[in-house]
Amino acid sequence: MTAEILDGKAFGAKIRARVADHVARLVADHDLRPGLAVVLVGEDPASQVYVRNKGIATKEAGMKSVEHKLPADTTEADLYALIDELNADPTIHGILVQFPVPDQLSERDIVARIDPAKDVDGLSVTNAGLLASGQRAMVSCTPLGCLMLLRETLGSLSGKDAVVIGRSNLVGKPMAQLLLRDSCTVTIAHSRTADIAETVRRADIVVAAVGRPRMVPGDWIKPGACVIDVGINRIPAPEKGEGKTRLVGDVDFDSAREVAGQITPVPGGVGPLTIACLLANTVTAACRINGLDEPEGLTA
Amino acid sequence: MTAEILDGKAFGAKIRARVADHVARLVADHDLRPGLAVVLVGEDPASQVYVRNKGIATKEAGMKSVEHKLPADTTEADLYALIDELNADPTIHGILVQFPVPDQLSERDIVARIDPAKDVDGLSVTNAGLLASGQRAMVSCTPLGCLMLLRETLGSLSGKDAVVIGRSNLVGKPMAQLLLRDSCTVTIAHSRTADIAETVRRADIVVAAVGRPRMVPGDWIKPGACVIDVGINRIPAPEKGEGKTRLVGDVDFDSAREVAGQITPVPGGVGPLTIACLLANTVTAACRINGLDEPEGLTA
Ligand SMILES: NC(=O)c1ccc[n+]([C@@H]2O[C@H](COP(=O)([O-])OP(=O)(O)OC[C@H]3O[C@@H](n4cnc5c(N)ncnc54)[C@H](OP(=O)(O)O)[C@@H]3O)[C@@H](O)[C@H]2O)c1
Ligand SMILES: NC(=O)c1ccc[n+]([C@@H]2O[C@H](COP(=O)([O-])OP(=O)(O)OC[C@H]3O[C@@H](n4cnc5c(N)ncnc54)[C@H](OP(=O)(O)O)[C@@H]3O)[C@@H](O)[C@H]2O)c1
Repeated sequence: MTAEILDGKAFGAKIRARVADHVARLVADHDLRPGLAVVLVGEDPASQVYVRNKGIATKEAGMKSVEHKLPADTTEADLYALIDELNADPTIHGILVQFPVPDQLSERDIVARIDPAKDVDGLSVTNAGLLASGQRAMVSCTPLGCLMLLRETLGSLSGKDAVVIGRSNLVGKPMAQLLLRDSCTVTIAHSRTADIAETVRRADIVVAAVGRPRMVPGDWIKPGACVIDVGINRIPAPEKGEGKTRLVGDVDFDSAREVAGQITPVPGGVGPLTIACLLANTVTAACRINGLDEPEGLTA
Repeated sequence: MTAEILDGKAFGAKIRARVADHVARLVADHDLRPGLAVVLVGEDPASQVYVRNKGIATKEAGMKSVEHKLPADTTEADLYALIDELNADPTIHGILVQFPVPDQLSERDIVARIDPAKDVDGLSVTNAGLLASGQRAMVSCTPLGCLMLLRETLGSLSGKDAVVIGRSNLVGKPMAQLLLRDSCTVTIAHSRTADIAETVRRADIVVAAVGRPRMVPGDWIKPGACVIDVGINRIPAPEKGEGKTRLVGDVDFDSAREVAGQITPVPGGVGPLTIACLLANTVTAACRINGLDEPEGLTA
């Protein structure tokens, strides 16, 4: 058996097209253009690229995009003044502060300052609590993207055995909540799991969010299982030339694809879904803030 | 093999003794007497009993106990005025509104009105979010009691396979979060679980919180597993006389005790821990609100 390879680029484009459709309808029917504000503190080159790409994608979807670039020595007070302004701005529905931030700032406090209704990264305690208690939340983009891909691939997830490897606040835990909400039987594994091979082996759905290159070999995978590889790990690639590197996931793709029913590659799997879900969350936030129906196919 | 029967009454008394010790120390060293306010709306006879018992236990532990009894037709505005007053009262560290409440009132909104720092029932979205993101939370009393009993019985829970049957906001989900925090590999099962017998069979720790009399038979239990039965179900007991009833758990005690390593009975297992943990949470809240160290052995 060779697995179907799930094309995250194509599915990300599909989500973005759905987003653009919703945006066009919101503009036409309600004169409402969803707006996303991204705040960058300092000049980290990788962050600059991420912020630029988010801005481009936001505009491509027909939304309003605002970028705020603050100097690296920005004080908490100045950053909070900006966040408060964005919280109050009726043309802004999503606020994202690009992390990491310089040391004088606290990520946790920044997230707490953002209006939970505009917390499109889904990182706040309030949104974690809404998700945990089964209420309407803003959900962290990467797990939301994985959920959408799983639904697209498998249809109903109800009753399936799902194993999430990793228990971070950003990926593993919200992923487990989402799978539970869709009525999977969910197991959460992590570095203290006694027999991880055996634990993974019983899963119809495996989501790996660990950060260890190719940790999950094919012989941990139940034949026919759907494997979602969230990991992004850079490893040396001498075959490409001296000092070269390449990206691999947490799953050993070559052996796992021989066993799995479906599998996401790295790169080109989960990666492109994260930004698509950021746009989706911004549309969702715009609808909720304005008391309109939830967009279909863009929420958990 | 016959299981050790875990005596919840004795362990509840032990927690209460710990609470009383902490209270005595807080009074002596910091002139701080933890205070719990219980609000009862209406005259439900069962609720009246619960409220009275909570008051007695609170005083026995040396804490301040306040009861507010409001008429069944209390408006939201009047209830909120009382909650606001209790939120602001420095002698009150825990606030509990006894549920159910009459129809004109919303449980969710009531919980949201209570200062999360005084939400000793751990029901608010904020506390669910703090728990879900691994921060200091007020944790729902029943799962907290189960966690304490498991630690007391097994020592470290790290690496153990735990299955929680049930995914309610009150018991199942916070229980899973607590076991995950203590580094169990946690599986959450529920009514959509495909093969629940097999799922339960692999667990070193089984927590049943379903509400189905004797649903879990002994042959679902892995030999030596620790079985915590949260269920409280009233069933007919004709053997006691016509129209008589008795309480049973979600686990079939007679068959399970032949296989398990440890098991809680019903009644006399988890039941007595809930009220003990309400007192524990009130002490914890009093310490946190006053910037004092967390009490040892009373928190998650
Ligand atoms: N595709 C995307 O857009 C995207 C987005 C976010 C993250 N990621 C990638 O996803 C991966 C995980 O990210 P994260 O933020 O969740 O990472 P993280 O916060 O470092 O969490 C990693 C988790 O993996 C667990 N773990 C570590 N070693 C393990 C082992 N040997 N066996 C089993 N579990 C183990 C850890 O367990 P303990 O809790 O026991 O330590 C922890 O819960 C990273 O590669 C990251 O780059 C990708
Ligand atoms: N000892 C105490 O102090 C204490 C405190 C609180 C509660 N309790 C007792 O604990 C029990 C559970 O309380 P709760 O508030 O969590 O109840 P609940 O809100 O009714 O939740 C019950 C859970 O059990 C699941 N379930 C129902 N039928 C099932 C089946 N056949 N197989 C597997 N799972 C099934 C449900 O799954 P779905 O989500 O799929 O429907 C649900 O998640 C009750 O008996 C209650 O009286 C005791």
